[in-house]
Amino acid sequence: MSIITIERKILEKNDEIARQNRALLEKLSVFAINLLSSPGSGKTSLLERVLERLIGRLKMAVIEGDVHTDLDAQRVARYGVPVAQIVTHGGCHLEAKLVQDALVRLPLEGIQTLFIENVGNLVCPANFDLGETVKVVVISTTEGEDKPLKYPAIFRVAHALVINKMDLLPYLSFQLEDLRRNALDVNPALAMFETSCMTGAGIDEWCDWLLDRASSRL
Amino acid sequence: MSIITIERKILEKNDEIARQNRALLEKLSVFAINLLSSPGSGKTSLLERVLERLIGRLKMAVIEGDVHTDLDAQRVARYGVPVAQIVTHGGCHLEAKLVQDALVRLPLEGIQTLFIENVGNLVCPANFDLGETVKVVVISTTEGEDKPLKYPAIFRVAHALVINKMDLLPYLSFQLEDLRRNALDVNPALAMFETSCMTGAGIDEWCDWLLDRASSRL
Repeated sequence: MSIITIERKILEKNDEIARQNRALLEKLSVFAINLLSSPGSGKTSLLERVLERLIGRLKMAVIEGDVHTDLDAQRVARYGVPVAQIVTHGGCHLEAKLVQDALVRLPLEGIQTLFIENVGNLVCPANFDLGETVKVVVISTTEGEDKPLKYPAIFRVAHALVINKMDLLPYLSFQLEDLRRNALDVNPALAMFETSCMTGAGIDEWCDWLLDRASSRL
Repeated sequence: MSIITIERKILEKNDEIARQNRALLEKLSVFAINLLSSPGSGKTSLLERVLERLIGRLKMAVIEGDVHTDLDAQRVARYGVPVAQIVTHGGCHLEAKLVQDALVRLPLEGIQTLFIENVGNLVCPANFDLGETVKVVVISTTEGEDKPLKYPAIFRVAHALVINKMDLLPYLSFQLEDLRRNALDVNPALAMFETSCMTGAGIDEWCDWLLDRASSRL
């Protein structure tokens, strides 16, 4: 069997389990967000700001994906939401089977929104459907405006782009309009948000989008 | 054949070609640096500052690895050094074979230092020996102090860590000492440098280390 055949079989198997995950989440009316980004773009901080704001208004749960450690799960658990940690032990992306196993460990009944924080990696997670409702890419202003051109696959499959660390804009040579244009070149349908977890700017708009999407499923 | 067997065979094949690359580079007395980091930590900017400073003192060449585009090769070529671009077309890391093909395209005679800028990815490139002399990880201050704990493999195989974007420190909650401690916990032998491509701080120390290493091979 060639390597390409093996790869195709792995992806086919993944897609089959992703379909099962999606069927389960739809049955339970759970809006599931697959959060994707480079390491250190602020996915977990962004999630913390959302949990702070929407707790009491939305029943939420979290799956944390990490190569090593449960540091992110510990951060998120402080907000009192159910959290399942997946440690990939070197694996560079989440797969549908890992998410399926995590779903079993979560009390999903009544949950309206599930955040799945993927491994920090702007390449590999693009190929693996987890059964989520939407994919959201987070990029920080410090990463440069060329990233959608250099890593197009992940921007192409995403429904929304959150541009984080907007507070650092005055100290960077970063051109926000260039990033927006590059992102839309790759994916013209991309919804875009600009946030800062330090100042709180843009978090309300981002939460409104999530609330809108989650409530349209109830 | 199982997936694990296939993976082992891929890595064995890679290691064999890496040995050939290493033998060639040693024969030509080329000091080769495999530059590793997340997307957007400033690998290319750091390389530009080094080229600016060391041109005329050191004969250098560059291999640029990218998932898509030759934007980085264009940036580097402006400094008048030989550059070979590898585009992986979706591939998440450089492999020894890709580097071998690039080495053939470069005028290596007389070159003292070769920079190999890997694909922006803090996970997958750790497993693939390219035949380099040293591996150097670049991390930006905006990525957070927990990265060595969350992505230990790449810090474990590295010889040096460059902490970049030091100019942003006043605007971040980043704890430099925590990053240094976490990195040394994973790899006590790690040489560490603190740089800013915006202000030029620390670039001289980083260049001195490169010069030292390169000249010890002549």
